[in-house]
Amino acid sequence: MRAGRVPASPPARTIADVGEFGFLARVLPRLTTDSHTIVGPGQDCAVIRSRTRTLLTVDALVEGVHFEPGWLSARQLGRKSFLVNASDVAAMGGRPRCCLISLGVDPSYPARALSALQDGIVAAARECGTSVAGGNLTRSEKLFVSVTLLGDAPPRLVTRQGARPGDHVYVTGWLGDAALGLRLLRAGAAGGIGRAEAHLIRRFREPAARLRAGQSLVNARIVSAMIDVSDGLIQDLQHICTESRVGAVLQAPTVPVSPAYRAIQGGDRSLALSGGEDYELLCTVPERNVKRLERLQTELGCPITCIGQIEPGRGVRVAGALRPTTGGGGFDHFRKR
Amino acid sequence: MRAGRVPASPPARTIADVGEFGFLARVLPRLTTDSHTIVGPGQDCAVIRSRTRTLLTVDALVEGVHFEPGWLSARQLGRKSFLVNASDVAAMGGRPRCCLISLGVDPSYPARALSALQDGIVAAARECGTSVAGGNLTRSEKLFVSVTLLGDAPPRLVTRQGARPGDHVYVTGWLGDAALGLRLLRAGAAGGIGRAEAHLIRRFREPAARLRAGQSLVNARIVSAMIDVSDGLIQDLQHICTESRVGAVLQAPTVPVSPAYRAIQGGDRSLALSGGEDYELLCTVPERNVKRLERLQTELGCPITCIGQIEPGRGVRVAGALRPTTGGGGFDHFRKR
Repeated sequence: MRAGRVPASPPARTIADVGEFGFLARVLPRLTTDSHTIVGPGQDCAVIRSRTRTLLTVDALVEGVHFEPGWLSARQLGRKSFLVNASDVAAMGGRPRCCLISLGVDPSYPARALSALQDGIVAAARECGTSVAGGNLTRSEKLFVSVTLLGDAPPRLVTRQGARPGDHVYVTGWLGDAALGLRLLRAGAAGGIGRAEAHLIRRFREPAARLRAGQSLVNARIVSAMIDVSDGLIQDLQHICTESRVGAVLQAPTVPVSPAYRAIQGGDRSLALSGGEDYELLCTVPERNVKRLERLQTELGCPITCIGQIEPGRGVRVAGALRPTTGGGGFDHFRKR
Repeated sequence: MRAGRVPASPPARTIADVGEFGFLARVLPRLTTDSHTIVGPGQDCAVIRSRTRTLLTVDALVEGVHFEPGWLSARQLGRKSFLVNASDVAAMGGRPRCCLISLGVDPSYPARALSALQDGIVAAARECGTSVAGGNLTRSEKLFVSVTLLGDAPPRLVTRQGARPGDHVYVTGWLGDAALGLRLLRAGAAGGIGRAEAHLIRRFREPAARLRAGQSLVNARIVSAMIDVSDGLIQDLQHICTESRVGAVLQAPTVPVSPAYRAIQGGDRSLALSGGEDYELLCTVPERNVKRLERLQTELGCPITCIGQIEPGRGVRVAGALRPTTGGGGFDHFRKR
C-alpha cells in the first residue's frame, strides 16, 4: 500500500450481519470451562459439579440506566457486569464458581463490540477462578447484560442479619470514588484530564470485587453481618440495620476517601456517604473480634477502616455530618427525585 | 355507595411511586422457598443445598422482541418467562430446583402489574416444584424478564450430540400452534374469536414445559439426543445435526398438528415446520429403543410422533415438502430478512 493512502475500511459487521447462531458459533469456543464443568455452553443447559452449598446471585447493567454509550468500553462493560456479581459473592465470604450470561443487544450493535463485551466477562471470570457455563443472547433496543453467578458458600454463613448493638462498623478500601468518577463522565470528562480524574473514572469503570477480604473476614469469624456497598454507604448500612433490627451511627469524618477523591472534593464526604457503585465491603465486627481483625489486616488485600457503631433503634445517624439528613440518600432505581 | 355512581378510581401506583426497596419489601415475603433453600431472597446471595450435578440455564423475554404490550397479561408473561427455562431443563431430562429472576421495568410500570408478573413466575415455579431463590430489579425503558433456572441433572446426561444415522426422529405434542397464535395476535385477534383461535393464542401465551416426558425419555434410556423446539422444528433439528455431525430427513406430512391448527391452516404445515415457541421436545431414538418407547407412551403426559430419521451428511432435508427449501427457516433474533 502506498504511503499517504488511507485504506477504505470495510463497514463494521453488526450482529444482524452475522446472525445469532453465527455469533454464538464464534463465541462459544472462547468461553471458559473448568474441572467443575461437565457440560459447557451450547446445550439446552450447562451441567456443573456442585458442592454442598451454593451461593446464587444475579445483577444486570442496562444502557441508559447504569451507563451511557461511551462511558464504558464494551470490554469494561463485560468486566463490570461480572464484578458487580462477584462483589455480592464477596459479601457472603464465598468463592465464585461459574456464571451464566443473559445479553440483550440491538441488531445494529457491532459484532466486534459484542465479542469484546464477552471477552471482558470471560477475563473477569477467569481472574476470579470462575468459568462461564452458558448464556442467552436476545435482541433488545437497549443493551442489557444480566449475569447470574454461582459460588461456593463458606462453612459459616454471614448475612445482613447478624449485627448487634455495640458492634463496630467497618468498611474496606475507599468510598465515593465511583460516584465522583461517574459525575466526571456525566460532565463530559475524557482526554486531557489529570491523574486524579483518571483514577476516579477508572474506579467507576473497573470496580474490584473484594473477594479476598470477604473470604478472610468470614473464615476468621470476624464479622457479624456484611453487605457490599453498591447503593451507597448510608443506604447499604440501612439495609444491615433493617435486617438486623438495629440502628447505627456513622462518624462521617472517618469515612475513608482516596487521595484522588480528596484532591477534587477536599473535606466534603457527601459523595462518599451516599454515592453508589464502590463495591467495597461494609461489615459489623463485635468488640471481642476487633484485636483479631487488626492482626488480619495484611491478609485482606485492602485497607479496612472503622467508621461507626451499631446501636439500639432503627435508623442510620450521621455524626460530624457534612449533610444535615439522617438516613436517605443512596440509589433507588425507581424513586422519583 | 349509591347505584349508578361510578367511584373515582385512584390513579394506579407505579414502581416510581413505590420505590425499588418498597417494592422488594412487598414482594420478597411472597417468594417461595423450600427445603433446599438455606438463605432465601433479600441477601447479597441466596444459598441453596446442591446435589452432585446441577443443570443451569438462562433465557430472557424482552418487550418489543418476544411480545408487545397486550399480547400477554403480566401474569402470563411471568409464567412464560419461567416455563421457557423449564423447557430447557426438560430437554435434558432434569428436574427444576430453583430460579433467580432478573427484571428490568420502566418506572411508569404499574406496581400491580409487576406483582402479577412476579406471581406468575412464582406460580409456574411452584407447579414445577421449584423455589424462587432471589433476583434483581432494575430500571429499563423496555420491559425484560431474564430467568436463570437451576435443576437436578439426571444420572445419565443427554445432550444434542448423541444422534446417529438410522436413529428415528420424534417430537412430543403438536407443532405450529404458538406461531399461529402469535400470527393471530399480530393481526389483532382478541375478543369474539372462535375456539380454535383461542386455543392457538393460549398455546403462545401459556406454553407447557414437557418435564415429565423429558424425565421419562432420559431415565428410560430411550433417546440418543434431545432439544426443545423453541426456534422452530427445522432449525432445532439442525442444531442436533450440527452437534451430532449428522443429517436428517423430515417427513413433513407426519409432523403433528393440533385440530385447532388444522381448522385454520388445513394441510399447510409450513408454520409447524418453521414456527418457534412451541416448547415441545425433539429427540432421536435408536431403532433398538423404538419398541420400549411405544410401551412408555402413557407415561409421557403427551403424544409423541415419529417424524423422520437421522442419516449421514449434514443438513436437514424436508420430504413431502410443503415448502421448497431445505434447512433454514426458524427464528434467529438477528438475521436480516
